[in-house]
Amino acid sequence: MKPSERLQEVMAAVTPLDAAAVAEAEGRQGRLTKPIGALGRLEDMANRLAGIASMVPPPLPVPPALAIFAADHGVLAEGVSPWPAEVTGQMVANFCNQGAAVNVLARRWGASVVVVDVGVASTLGPMEGLVDAKVRRSSGNILVEDAMSQGEVQAAMDVGLDTAQRAIANGARCLLAGDMGIGNTTPSAALISAFTGVPPAMTTGRGTGIDQDMLAVKVSVVERALGRADLAEGGRAAKDPIGALAAVGGLEHAALVGYMIGGAAGRIPVVLDGVISLSAGMVAAALVPQAVGYWFAGHRPDEPGGSIALEHLGLHPVIDLGLRLGEGTGACLALPVLESSARLLGEMATFDSAGVTEKA
Amino acid sequence: MKPSERLQEVMAAVTPLDAAAVAEAEGRQGRLTKPIGALGRLEDMANRLAGIASMVPPPLPVPPALAIFAADHGVLAEGVSPWPAEVTGQMVANFCNQGAAVNVLARRWGASVVVVDVGVASTLGPMEGLVDAKVRRSSGNILVEDAMSQGEVQAAMDVGLDTAQRAIANGARCLLAGDMGIGNTTPSAALISAFTGVPPAMTTGRGTGIDQDMLAVKVSVVERALGRADLAEGGRAAKDPIGALAAVGGLEHAALVGYMIGGAAGRIPVVLDGVISLSAGMVAAALVPQAVGYWFAGHRPDEPGGSIALEHLGLHPVIDLGLRLGEGTGACLALPVLESSARLLGEMATFDSAGVTEKA
Repeated sequence: MKPSERLQEVMAAVTPLDAAAVAEAEGRQGRLTKPIGALGRLEDMANRLAGIASMVPPPLPVPPALAIFAADHGVLAEGVSPWPAEVTGQMVANFCNQGAAVNVLARRWGASVVVVDVGVASTLGPMEGLVDAKVRRSSGNILVEDAMSQGEVQAAMDVGLDTAQRAIANGARCLLAGDMGIGNTTPSAALISAFTGVPPAMTTGRGTGIDQDMLAVKVSVVERALGRADLAEGGRAAKDPIGALAAVGGLEHAALVGYMIGGAAGRIPVVLDGVISLSAGMVAAALVPQAVGYWFAGHRPDEPGGSIALEHLGLHPVIDLGLRLGEGTGACLALPVLESSARLLGEMATFDSAGVTEKA
Repeated sequence: MKPSERLQEVMAAVTPLDAAAVAEAEGRQGRLTKPIGALGRLEDMANRLAGIASMVPPPLPVPPALAIFAADHGVLAEGVSPWPAEVTGQMVANFCNQGAAVNVLARRWGASVVVVDVGVASTLGPMEGLVDAKVRRSSGNILVEDAMSQGEVQAAMDVGLDTAQRAIANGARCLLAGDMGIGNTTPSAALISAFTGVPPAMTTGRGTGIDQDMLAVKVSVVERALGRADLAEGGRAAKDPIGALAAVGGLEHAALVGYMIGGAAGRIPVVLDGVISLSAGMVAAALVPQAVGYWFAGHRPDEPGGSIALEHLGLHPVIDLGLRLGEGTGACLALPVLESSARLLGEMATFDSAGVTEKA
């Protein structure tokens, strides 16, 4: 399957990071008043920010904008989560009322929040901060049918692209990837297995907290969904990434793919969150490999597929505190660290300017 | 050896965390609009902050105050670092001129900074933000003599206690532990081996960046220093923690011991930094085991002894990004996360208030 013509054009506009700026940033790191490499991964982060912006020191990744893509999942009928689908819509209202975990973090660390209904099952009234971009009500049950048709997956990816472009037009200089969808760790595990070839028993986890029996059901559902879609063999998904997304993904996953590619095309950093955005990242990376350079992994999800996806994408998580909430909470927590990395490269004294003797 | 009478009184004032407040915080976590445990270690952090303050939700750990304890080390003569001792004093000037990494982070995340000369070899002129509390010029060379006499170790611990008490009197509600001292990872490794019994080959690392040959020298120096002080046998240090500190520690280590105990006695959180403060934490924990409840590990140091000390103290690091700089940089980076944990517990909606259906 192909993306929409609009998205194809945007994909073609994604360029590799500016290698000269990355090298210049590395050189500057070596002149700051600290041993070489002593800031660990903060140095890599800052150097990448320089490559993204073609500027040394890099601009701060502010203001940041968080989009929470919300959708429901037909596969919930198979008993893969203890939470009812109605919670997706209730949590959307909670986001709009500023009561969720991600609201607390976004407020404190300066991120604007928009909630995008790309496929919630229930009808949501107009709410402050909610964008109605519903492509369909809930995805298909991936155990027995595709999650989305070709037209639907294209439309959902375009919703994500629109969201990224609107945020950038409004001044955002960093995009944060959020999600809400009861049952959405199941399609995430399916996508991660489809792209890596790692068996579902190793990519599927307890999501927001399920017992051993429900986990066994969930693993079996993922295995059978992959079999149904002819994606059980590792590597098949890479030949038709959008086909795999339509077959075993979700509407919010599709929107996140468009969003992450949109951020890379706009040459600003994108901070991924948990296993939902990481699984979407697998799809987006298969479509536009050079987009990965623009992405930062906000945190290491508790869900086992998350670590597998991180390794596959070659991303190191900023935060590693066992979160398993989604919403964009891990991305928000990473913001102060990402900003710190840029400030250090920009604001520290050099050995020369501070009159500090260098290592023998 | 005994601490000063003043410090003995303060040690006796350290109480365990308020278990009722911790339990109340845990209960509140379960009513917030998120699956139980979904915020991972952020929940533990917030619950501990509640137990520290006897208040649910806990007060924010603001404003924070960072103290950087600076001293030199006689053992530098053995060739354990490629940096000359003069860099300690030069970096103190860099701190006072706001040019170091920790200044960038403290400024952005709201921590005040004081630099305390507890044993720098050179004479430092009066500088903005510098406290002259020099106990002696550089510690003794631990390979051939004790780092400090009994009077000196007591005085250095009291410097740390004074610093904590002054910060709290000035309104600080969170203490951050910083250090500066060329060569100070060597006594840190010695202390960690002395308290855990783990051999120096496993606790000693490359510090701010040394080659294989210098590392071999450093390991041998730590081994021989422990032998000289009769601390090679695991567990001996616990019988006389201050004796071990005086024998193979450093002046900034001693000050940090008093500082960490002072924070616990003042019932406010103390954020440790890297391997220097973690090794001081081993001494302080041996003196006042219940003080550990007041401490948060800012980050996981790159230095191998750091992870051994973390495990021994039962602390999980907030940040894990391969930093090996000291100064308090890891403690500063942890601040936004620690504050986030308290805000989440205080500001999130409950299932009831938000009208969200609970898990089946």
